[in-house]
Amino acid sequence: MQKIAFIGLGNMGNPMAINLLKNSHDIIGFDLSKEAIANFKKAGGKTAATALDACRDREVVITMLPSGKHVAELLTDEFIGNLKPGTLIIESSTIDPATAKAVATLAKTRNCFMIDAPVSGGTAGAQNATLTFIVGGTQDALQKAMPYLTCMGKNIFHAGPSGAGQMTKICNNLLLSILMIGTSEALNLGTANGLDPKVLSEIIQKSSGRNWALEVYNPYPGVMEGVPASREYTGGFAVDLMTKDLGLAMEASLAAKTAIPMGNIAFNFYKTWSEEGNGKLDFSSIIRFLDHKESN
Amino acid sequence: MQKIAFIGLGNMGNPMAINLLKNSHDIIGFDLSKEAIANFKKAGGKTAATALDACRDREVVITMLPSGKHVAELLTDEFIGNLKPGTLIIESSTIDPATAKAVATLAKTRNCFMIDAPVSGGTAGAQNATLTFIVGGTQDALQKAMPYLTCMGKNIFHAGPSGAGQMTKICNNLLLSILMIGTSEALNLGTANGLDPKVLSEIIQKSSGRNWALEVYNPYPGVMEGVPASREYTGGFAVDLMTKDLGLAMEASLAAKTAIPMGNIAFNFYKTWSEEGNGKLDFSSIIRFLDHKESN
Amino acid sequence: MQKIAFIGLGNMGNPMAINLLKNSHDIIGFDLSKEAIANFKKAGGKTAATALDACRDREVVITMLPSGKHVAELLTDEFIGNLKPGTLIIESSTIDPATAKAVATLAKTRNCFMIDAPVSGGTAGAQNATLTFIVGGTQDALQKAMPYLTCMGKNIFHAGPSGAGQMTKICNNLLLSILMIGTSEALNLGTANGLDPKVLSEIIQKSSGRNWALEVYNPYPGVMEGVPASREYTGGFAVDLMTKDLGLAMEASLAAKTAIPMGNIAFNFYKTWSEEGNGKLDFSSIIRFLDHKESN
Amino acid sequence: MQKIAFIGLGNMGNPMAINLLKNSHDIIGFDLSKEAIANFKKAGGKTAATALDACRDREVVITMLPSGKHVAELLTDEFIGNLKPGTLIIESSTIDPATAKAVATLAKTRNCFMIDAPVSGGTAGAQNATLTFIVGGTQDALQKAMPYLTCMGKNIFHAGPSGAGQMTKICNNLLLSILMIGTSEALNLGTANGLDPKVLSEIIQKSSGRNWALEVYNPYPGVMEGVPASREYTGGFAVDLMTKDLGLAMEASLAAKTAIPMGNIAFNFYKTWSEEGNGKLDFSSIIRFLDHKESN
Repeated sequence: MQKIAFIGLGNMGNPMAINLLKNSHDIIGFDLSKEAIANFKKAGGKTAATALDACRDREVVITMLPSGKHVAELLTDEFIGNLKPGTLIIESSTIDPATAKAVATLAKTRNCFMIDAPVSGGTAGAQNATLTFIVGGTQDALQKAMPYLTCMGKNIFHAGPSGAGQMTKICNNLLLSILMIGTSEALNLGTANGLDPKVLSEIIQKSSGRNWALEVYNPYPGVMEGVPASREYTGGFAVDLMTKDLGLAMEASLAAKTAIPMGNIAFNFYKTWSEEGNGKLDFSSIIRFLDHKESN
Repeated sequence: MQKIAFIGLGNMGNPMAINLLKNSHDIIGFDLSKEAIANFKKAGGKTAATALDACRDREVVITMLPSGKHVAELLTDEFIGNLKPGTLIIESSTIDPATAKAVATLAKTRNCFMIDAPVSGGTAGAQNATLTFIVGGTQDALQKAMPYLTCMGKNIFHAGPSGAGQMTKICNNLLLSILMIGTSEALNLGTANGLDPKVLSEIIQKSSGRNWALEVYNPYPGVMEGVPASREYTGGFAVDLMTKDLGLAMEASLAAKTAIPMGNIAFNFYKTWSEEGNGKLDFSSIIRFLDHKESN
Repeated sequence: MQKIAFIGLGNMGNPMAINLLKNSHDIIGFDLSKEAIANFKKAGGKTAATALDACRDREVVITMLPSGKHVAELLTDEFIGNLKPGTLIIESSTIDPATAKAVATLAKTRNCFMIDAPVSGGTAGAQNATLTFIVGGTQDALQKAMPYLTCMGKNIFHAGPSGAGQMTKICNNLLLSILMIGTSEALNLGTANGLDPKVLSEIIQKSSGRNWALEVYNPYPGVMEGVPASREYTGGFAVDLMTKDLGLAMEASLAAKTAIPMGNIAFNFYKTWSEEGNGKLDFSSIIRFLDHKESN
Repeated sequence: MQKIAFIGLGNMGNPMAINLLKNSHDIIGFDLSKEAIANFKKAGGKTAATALDACRDREVVITMLPSGKHVAELLTDEFIGNLKPGTLIIESSTIDPATAKAVATLAKTRNCFMIDAPVSGGTAGAQNATLTFIVGGTQDALQKAMPYLTCMGKNIFHAGPSGAGQMTKICNNLLLSILMIGTSEALNLGTANGLDPKVLSEIIQKSSGRNWALEVYNPYPGVMEGVPASREYTGGFAVDLMTKDLGLAMEASLAAKTAIPMGNIAFNFYKTWSEEGNGKLDFSSIIRFLDHKESN
């Protein structure tokens, strides 16, 4: 049983912290929202008055925050200086790799360890402890983190040194957005020319066009059961979150002077789709943006 | 043993016809090129002086030609009128669905049967009889064609009525081109930011970015053995062929008034890459177009 | 005073025909719509029961129809064969150059003359006789047409042989769509970063970014008076018409195997914007598609 | 006669400083390159051993540096603290607006004045004192700067408060890149379909497609004399500089969360064209990237 602080008890952080509780860890939680604090208490968690109160004298600090800005504002040099030497920080927010690296460096100079460990799997994965963690940091730090990560998730990947977890997640989601748009275009083109979307999906899935979207997340309504496309694009991975991740990809591309032209297109499409009032829909709803006739 | 005519004995048609020969069918071949005729004779095939001589009184006519124009010029109303009633035409060229449908209609009025049966799998698939056929036409006509298709290929898909085979292949290759470019962007972005392309590929392939390109055809040099990327992008599926198929996708998109914006981008990229002198390279070489530094 | 037939009395054709009437020409009009026929009669025009009745024994036939399909269906070999030898056909619809060339060739074999003379300037230009005609055909035919064109328009350009009028108009409108989107992006980017759209427009208009859109058709609301942007994008050149013209550009690009990547993007944007219910708005409304916040 | 420091004596800075000299100003120059220092001495200028030596006790400090990073490293709080109170800083590099604003704020706290005054017009404009300055800053500061700006340039625009000069230049060049690509596409499409590029250019220039590129900088070889297209795209505004400016536009777009999809495409095209070895060519050479056949 380890002494853990959990900062950020929102839709993702709350069930993650509860899964640690279920494994008998000693957790103190904190969130700026009083509602989030109350929810965590109701689930049996202890809470603190400030983030620092929650983190002082803990062995592990886990953070799950909305953006890199929040992470940088919390994990300052001064804040980390108040932690117990040797503290392991598991930073699970999805943020820019540069901030992840900078905070890891700060941690090191204060004799702490930090890994960046962004997740995928959504709120369902958080509740069922089936999240995927993509980790950046040393092998040692990852080994120390494993007992906690496995309470919250199923697949843990080591992507490389600090920042590599974030960078890998960004690359995956960049590709995912392109797969989804490409799959949507192929299905739109085929059905507009008279093909049956189910037969078309099956044949492509057995051919060189196969990909994750066709396999488990078909965007065309009525082709696959239990996916957002079969329930008016509710649930799933929100357009706004994909737009955020594509923004991180654009920044990384500018910083490294590498062109990602299809990623740029994907970013623009998701951004426009969000501005048209669809930010909360699942990201597979982009098929409607591409051909509005499909939505009828 | 059936009496078959095979028109078009090029890189694809020659080995396909030879695989039928191996199964003891009685084949008469024809090609406009004397060299192609000579090659087929050397392999033990019979040939005729004209396409019509090859096709008259045959039970099955198989065509494997460069483009829709060639198909329309060969399979005219008059030509089909000279075939034996009940002849089965297996049209295996990759062409526009409109021509495929038009010729199938002509065939029907002449009491013949036509299926469109474009292939994937390349020259290796043609030689090893492991081609994939995507078939458009009636169930009956497909049943009649099965014994011949299985001599030449391994997977036979029924996509729908006449033209559906072509349309489905076009949709698959449209998506394939987008997968390949998206995968290339993700790998370029990650490596430009310091990630190891092998580790990155493995993690994405187990995540929501997974797709055929990552699984069996990784475009990044040195990540996967036995693929075009590991031999300077020689062999494989040529940039020029992908450009042709994307041109068909653009035409189908305009005809059906459906937008395929990423497909448009893919078409333009492959076209430019071809014009820069890379038309004979494998289509995974597009990773170099996206980031020329990778090629060093 | 010449004997003229005018086929197609819609929003454009009606005022064009009336301007010829005002110049004392003897006009017989025809349209498939009874309402259009009635409108023309009300304005003092004569009409006929069929297109052929209108055109027989006339010296000049002017056509103003919705699309290439309509033109090809009207101006058949048989129809032209019933015209008086030497008849001058002024084909003013905006259609694909291939149809324009084909009909011009038919006309020639029947000893008639045809020019393609697509217009710009919209309904206001048609009413005020200030249209621009971009003409394809021989110098001779253009000379013959000049007296009539100048009754209806102000600027008459000779673009080249048959089809060149259509092709030139397509190129102009392709570029216009790109100018409009580019101008919108520049204004959106500047204002999102705190610039005054009026000052920004003035400076760019005096710099290397200057173009027709900034000069006379600023898409940003409130910058310029008397333009569609200042009246909720009503009036002007409709999104649907721009989409149609960009479709012609895409077809011409595929036929000539020339890439127009920005044109492809423009086509996709206008198509999506139209499908979202904005097809009747002026084409400068695309600034709202690019940044929906601007519309508030 | 004012006491001026000029930091950055490269291809642009050198002739600009010389034009100030010609107007009898007392200039001390500085550059990190010994060659640049020597060139300025040869032209009759005084120089200093360090940037600070050049700037101390001056009334005006002009900077012309390669990037925002260089500006931020030079104009630190400490450096500005060593200037005479009341010093006017004219920052003429092309940099990101955020850095321009930050340095202007620093200057203000030290009782100095800074304007951002990026230029266009190239080395020819610098030599002939015909540059355009687009200025951000207060009206007061601009009035103080006018006597110096008019020694070096012809058009001086006031774009708004600090940073607005940079932002306006970025918007202009974003639009310019799109105009150039759009113009190239229209000319490529027309000529590929048989039109004469000269006639096509003239007609569009009198129509709604008109823009700066067609008017004074036609990218099609042989259409216009004295432009880069008529001398193999040498001279002019380099591809690498356009790529840099488009990178600034992308950053501004991400920061302000405004989409610039055509700008993204333009950035990717210029970047790829540069990587293919064409970075030193004039930016109108992009017409060759779009259709390589044109270059033959």
